[in-house]
Amino acid sequence: MLRLHDYGPSGNCYKVRLLLAALEIPYERVPIDLKDDPAKQAYRARFRLGRVPVLELDDGKELAESNAILCYLAEGTPYLPNDRWERAQVLKWLFWEQYDHEPYIAVIRAWRAYFGIPKGREAEVPLRKARAYEALGVLEDELTHKIFLASDRYSIADMSLFAYSHVAHEGGFELSRFPALCRWIARIQAQPKHVRISD
Amino acid sequence: MLRLHDYGPSGNCYKVRLLLAALEIPYERVPIDLKDDPAKQAYRARFRLGRVPVLELDDGKELAESNAILCYLAEGTPYLPNDRWERAQVLKWLFWEQYDHEPYIAVIRAWRAYFGIPKGREAEVPLRKARAYEALGVLEDELTHKIFLASDRYSIADMSLFAYSHVAHEGGFELSRFPALCRWIARIQAQPKHVRISD
Repeated sequence: MLRLHDYGPSGNCYKVRLLLAALEIPYERVPIDLKDDPAKQAYRARFRLGRVPVLELDDGKELAESNAILCYLAEGTPYLPNDRWERAQVLKWLFWEQYDHEPYIAVIRAWRAYFGIPKGREAEVPLRKARAYEALGVLEDELTHKIFLASDRYSIADMSLFAYSHVAHEGGFELSRFPALCRWIARIQAQPKHVRISD
Repeated sequence: MLRLHDYGPSGNCYKVRLLLAALEIPYERVPIDLKDDPAKQAYRARFRLGRVPVLELDDGKELAESNAILCYLAEGTPYLPNDRWERAQVLKWLFWEQYDHEPYIAVIRAWRAYFGIPKGREAEVPLRKARAYEALGVLEDELTHKIFLASDRYSIADMSLFAYSHVAHEGGFELSRFPALCRWIARIQAQPKHVRISD
């Protein structure tokens, strides 16, 4: 059975749980409490890249990077299109998520709701908040004329961007400013086999 | 013919040129001078995500995100393995590059060698430098027991990570501390059809 090394509130972990649920793939959740320093140190000693999630296969092979895990699991399913151009669109959104969305929306949420602002990094907060709103604005523009991000079907691009977007309010962001984004969030929450981040 | 919207010194652009050369795909380079503010504004007005590179296809379709472009162009070639696990490894490195490597090594290089440190962001420099050395350390550890990053063959994972690693000295980083990384850099430079960033 697959094992998912997982921290509950992490959107990067949640996006993988969302896909595993959609695909009805059974797996074992191996929780790691990132707020507990010794547990975190032990995890970092075991996994070189030091981050959650890590997917562990039956044969012990390990895969890090949430969006790489999504691509691996979604291969050959409707959540990762076969069409070369549509695949490229999915990947574009996945890379954009890690560079232009997660470092702002997820990091501000993590600092505000879970870990506090690391000492000496207070000056980064205004810029990160501004970039977060820019990212939400990009999504709003896209979703004003689209049902889903990468094609006309629900894909791992939506799952990946949904993970931190739908809890952006925990970072203090006002999602009500983005009506098309809010409709897309509701659309994803209404998908069959959807699970919540707190499940 | 393909058109590549391109800024010469950008490693994100260079990695695409490296792959296009390896695949012997003809293309037109459309230079954009990011040091020229009006040119930059015009570019941002045209391309919503506002970044280089953008690949423009024959039919006018446009693809952003350097690593998504690599995957798109490498599909069906030896530079992106068909094996599902090896593909996942390539993607793991591509996502890691955008999250843990580029924001530190490329950004410090850009600030030091091309654009200056943006006003008010001086405090970020020590942390970004430390993270850059951590990223170089991760690569060194990997390359101590491997020829290439994702499999036993040269792939787009190597191209992507080579792009900013081999010019890290322009960011003030001492590459000589990382002998396995230096051997890997020489190995890539010796590949057939290799082009330089300044070509």
